Amino acid sequence: MEGVDHLAHERNSAQFDVDEMKIVWAGSRHAYEVSDRMSRLVANDPAFRKDSRAQLTRKELFKNTLRKATYAWKRILELKLSEEEAGRLRFFVDEPAFTDLHWGMFVPFLKGQGTEEQLQKWLPLANKLQIIGCYAQTELGHGSNVQGLETTATFDPKTDEFVIHSPTLTSSKWWPGGLGKVSTHAVVFARLITDGRDYGVHGFMVQIRSLDDHSVLPGITIGDIGMKFGNGAYNTMDNGVMHFDHFRIPRDQLLTRISQVTREGKCVQSDAPRQLVYGTMVFVRKAIVIDASNALSRAVCIATRYSAVRRQFGSQDGVETQVINYKTQQSRLFPLLASAYAFRFVGEWLQWLYTDVTQRLAASDFSTLPEAHACTAGLKSITTAATADGIEECRKLCGGHGYLCSSGLPELFAVYVPACTYEGDNVVLLLQVARFLVKTVSQVASGKKPVGTTAYMGRLQHLMESSCKVQKAEDWLNPSVVLEVFEARSARMSVECAKRLSEFTNQEEGFQELSPSLVEAAAAYCQLIIVSKYIEKLQGDIPGKGIKEQLQILCSVYALYTLHKHKGDFLSTSTITPKQASLADDQLRSLYSQVRPNAIALVDAFNYTDHYLGSILGRYDGNVYPNLYDEAWKDPLNDSAIPDGYHEYIKPLLKQQLRNARL
Amino acid sequence: MEGVDHLAHERNSAQFDVDEMKIVWAGSRHAYEVSDRMSRLVANDPAFRKDSRAQLTRKELFKNTLRKATYAWKRILELKLSEEEAGRLRFFVDEPAFTDLHWGMFVPFLKGQGTEEQLQKWLPLANKLQIIGCYAQTELGHGSNVQGLETTATFDPKTDEFVIHSPTLTSSKWWPGGLGKVSTHAVVFARLITDGRDYGVHGFMVQIRSLDDHSVLPGITIGDIGMKFGNGAYNTMDNGVMHFDHFRIPRDQLLTRISQVTREGKCVQSDAPRQLVYGTMVFVRKAIVIDASNALSRAVCIATRYSAVRRQFGSQDGVETQVINYKTQQSRLFPLLASAYAFRFVGEWLQWLYTDVTQRLAASDFSTLPEAHACTAGLKSITTAATADGIEECRKLCGGHGYLCSSGLPELFAVYVPACTYEGDNVVLLLQVARFLVKTVSQVASGKKPVGTTAYMGRLQHLMESSCKVQKAEDWLNPSVVLEVFEARSARMSVECAKRLSEFTNQEEGFQELSPSLVEAAAAYCQLIIVSKYIEKLQGDIPGKGIKEQLQILCSVYALYTLHKHKGDFLSTSTITPKQASLADDQLRSLYSQVRPNAIALVDAFNYTDHYLGSILGRYDGNVYPNLYDEAWKDPLNDSAIPDGYHEYIKPLLKQQLRNARL
Repeated sequence: MEGVDHLAHERNSAQFDVDEMKIVWAGSRHAYEVSDRMSRLVANDPAFRKDSRAQLTRKELFKNTLRKATYAWKRILELKLSEEEAGRLRFFVDEPAFTDLHWGMFVPFLKGQGTEEQLQKWLPLANKLQIIGCYAQTELGHGSNVQGLETTATFDPKTDEFVIHSPTLTSSKWWPGGLGKVSTHAVVFARLITDGRDYGVHGFMVQIRSLDDHSVLPGITIGDIGMKFGNGAYNTMDNGVMHFDHFRIPRDQLLTRISQVTREGKCVQSDAPRQLVYGTMVFVRKAIVIDASNALSRAVCIATRYSAVRRQFGSQDGVETQVINYKTQQSRLFPLLASAYAFRFVGEWLQWLYTDVTQRLAASDFSTLPEAHACTAGLKSITTAATADGIEECRKLCGGHGYLCSSGLPELFAVYVPACTYEGDNVVLLLQVARFLVKTVSQVASGKKPVGTTAYMGRLQHLMESSCKVQKAEDWLNPSVVLEVFEARSARMSVECAKRLSEFTNQEEGFQELSPSLVEAAAAYCQLIIVSKYIEKLQGDIPGKGIKEQLQILCSVYALYTLHKHKGDFLSTSTITPKQASLADDQLRSLYSQVRPNAIALVDAFNYTDHYLGSILGRYDGNVYPNLYDEAWKDPLNDSAIPDGYHEYIKPLLKQQLRNARL
Repeated sequence: MEGVDHLAHERNSAQFDVDEMKIVWAGSRHAYEVSDRMSRLVANDPAFRKDSRAQLTRKELFKNTLRKATYAWKRILELKLSEEEAGRLRFFVDEPAFTDLHWGMFVPFLKGQGTEEQLQKWLPLANKLQIIGCYAQTELGHGSNVQGLETTATFDPKTDEFVIHSPTLTSSKWWPGGLGKVSTHAVVFARLITDGRDYGVHGFMVQIRSLDDHSVLPGITIGDIGMKFGNGAYNTMDNGVMHFDHFRIPRDQLLTRISQVTREGKCVQSDAPRQLVYGTMVFVRKAIVIDASNALSRAVCIATRYSAVRRQFGSQDGVETQVINYKTQQSRLFPLLASAYAFRFVGEWLQWLYTDVTQRLAASDFSTLPEAHACTAGLKSITTAATADGIEECRKLCGGHGYLCSSGLPELFAVYVPACTYEGDNVVLLLQVARFLVKTVSQVASGKKPVGTTAYMGRLQHLMESSCKVQKAEDWLNPSVVLEVFEARSARMSVECAKRLSEFTNQEEGFQELSPSLVEAAAAYCQLIIVSKYIEKLQGDIPGKGIKEQLQILCSVYALYTLHKHKGDFLSTSTITPKQASLADDQLRSLYSQVRPNAIALVDAFNYTDHYLGSILGRYDGNVYPNLYDEAWKDPLNDSAIPDGYHEYIKPLLKQQLRNARL
């Protein structure tokens, strides 16, 4: 059956131009072409195979990752790839490695915080990987609360050096990727102490390993922190532990544009605006939102294709029904498909927001910064949580076979879930968003005009009183109706929180007490952003046969599914009536029927190679069962018919000869 | 700091007698004593250590499991343990093995379906492990739909044998635990074909491996299906694939009391009631519900202890705040703690139900069977889904460190999640429950008296019209108020489904179309059962200082949290008002404060040893950080300071000597 496309009839049923949709998904024709080229380059190169990952020992796995990372770099140089191309190539290699932290955290932080002299010294080396850097912030006892870090950097005016020290066990650096075995340098976060004062946490450039023989420098202890969740997954990464014993670095390795320490040990604030650091946060979190759409779309692609292959129950002409035809399957799968598209478009918008913020910062305009910071933090939280849950839901949607490593879903889940915790724990972030919302409500009350994604709060009076006009199911297809109920729900929840907070004499105590409700109000605001940015996207020009229609359907699915899931919010704020909620459910079911014939083509539009998907269930050709069967035999347990241990353990059992068995 | 209890102050703050609670949790003093003794026996025996599981290769891991299983059996014989004690010992060994299927599926099925002669022949051998059996039902292409299995067992009257055959690739047996490498025998499910007719799926006793040399018998192909989700986890089990090529077995190995095939090939139905098979389903699913409370309580124990150890933000006397003091942490953690207790008590009740069903079956009373079957299926679905999600939530509640294998949570999750799929996919089960509910509604309408957990439907008229009396937050502590809103919500959702179904001319089409709502109605019914059985439990005598008070608090937490989570259901059925929902939230927050001082003691009551928990974060003594630090160094990557691969891959990078590198 070589070469047969078992999903051809599914592809033929699509009502839109899948090639055009690939461009929409990628963001532009250029982005599509780069991604397409890089993904094929990786998929066609046997050096990048990843099919045996689950069976390698930690050491073999790690060594293999080193090989791939170095090989990838070699190819990048040989092919003279642009920065964009190199980034896409690394993306499709699809294996966490020290280079992620080097390019994703170390270099950007250096660029963002380094002075001219520091950039001149370090950047050329970093850009050529003559030094390899990591980002050493979190400690064994300190994660979310950066200001609670314990590592100290005490200026010693006698020698013109900082003394980096870990005063306690809990101050050991813990988690930094690339630290455990590879990095030669690290951005180390430590409390700047000089002149008898603690100036809080700052970044320092620290060389940690010899460039001659890679040995860890005297005064530093470094190791890997051990195995993490999953087979393969993040175990390709050397997350590390690092302990300093009065380790000295030159004064000019304080890595920040905002403070300087003079030769005499005076800490001097520079002119650079402190808000610069928020620009970096917006940058990193926007990338995480785009990553969420990558990971979710990948899981959805696997589950959708396999749902069209798999048949259970029912009977049409003696053949069981494809599980994708069941409404229960559709009601779990299609909202995730819609979410993948929704996250894609909100990620695209965040890309614009980041550019906007950067330009404003350059012009010393900080007016939109709190709003930009809040919505980026919130979207990071909402999209990563939904993606982690969504990947696991996709695994369950594949039935028992989703539990096999060869489905690709266990590893995808295990490698993805840390996104809910790193770069801001999701709940901690939503609390930050809630603080911003409560403040916005009070500012609106005192006449200040809300900006950006909170502009709708300018119509607070209207939103508190408006009533939803839906009278029949199709009314829920009207974007302005949908937008207004999301706005009203969000506004009412924020206002309710602000009102209840004002009943506390101690604001901080009130904030603590009401925090579960505050988190929900923050989530409502973030869902509004996702819905509104999707609707905005649809207001623009989107060419291609049937493209806009499909995207409109998915937009409605996302909005009405979110409404269904959070029906309690909409009803308890009296934003909609029970009858309207029921009409929304009716409309949603009818939308699922419209998605159905397009489902396979909508996941084909992600343009993922079989290499990238890494899933037998998600194979493009749908030829699942023969390949699952063949794959099974590759397990080392099948090397011999009689398993290791038969003679020592099974035989004595069966032969009732346990007395003398050595166990 | 050896021997210091870092959680002593937490334990001292408990307002109840933890030793008495241990007995409540175990179910009886006897059960507590057996569990306590067996868990210590396992924990104190170095042969049962499990700390290196994540680092073993598949072969090493599997061999080690064989050793443990055989060693456990040896100890069971040496110590002359009772069946109950042996079961608890295996439980605390905490490593999936072929014995799970032998004792949990093979032997029970043999006992339930075997004739007198079959029992005499096979049971003594099975009881002594002179044969090892597995349960071969699912196939590569067939899981949920048992009636769709393809394997055939065709009677050949010439030789008086059944010919077992796998006609297609998708008919290969796939998933049975213990099949891949160990079992000598299998209960094989195949379509019974005789006399030119297909009599549907029946079980057959089939010897699959030689008892002399363990080789697979000619005509059968067997292998392991490969790696599954997680490090360690279910990879200790040899889930297998099996293909038959016209394999012959004697006629008397048809393993069922309900049908016989005569020497001439006539299929004859026996007098035994077909309903017997439901008894086994109730038995297996009740065990799964109890398992859910085990797994969830284990995760909650780890997360609760670590939440009391871990500190982030805030500041009391210069020390950060224990994260367990944050309302957001409490609002995620304490409902899971309450759920663990709630699932325990509903499991206890299912134990009673199973006894009741067995007695009724023996007396040929089938009147309660549909209800017993529906509520067992539904509770299996609800508790396993909540447990799988709950374990992952506990992992997230531990912050970044929950992602380390040494937290114990990744493996617990990976080993637990298949419970959502095996023994009835959770969504498929809820659809069965929904069918039963819709039928019950129509029977009630025609005057039939509903039984057992559906007895409340007898007050349908009242429940459709009643209104909730809550006026202040404390009113939500009244069990009869809570019970009635859960009854009203469930009744109204079922009635609404029945009403909407009746609008379809084709009932089956309607059932398909409305299936997402039907699933929600079924879940509402199951949550009602859990709440009502917990309330019933509290109506009985529960001795011990403060015990009942604590259990009452947790019961309210479970009920009000469930109400909050499904607020949309309660509001859209007009069971409660938005104001009452808000009062429930207020009461819930206040309950969290009451749980707080008792939290550590409430998880101590599970009486889990550190061996069983297998988690550094969940250590009894709370001495987390030094142990996390020490554990890290045991990773094989830390065997050498310079990693394998440095010379081949890292050095050429740093030295810019890629051209000649072999990659």
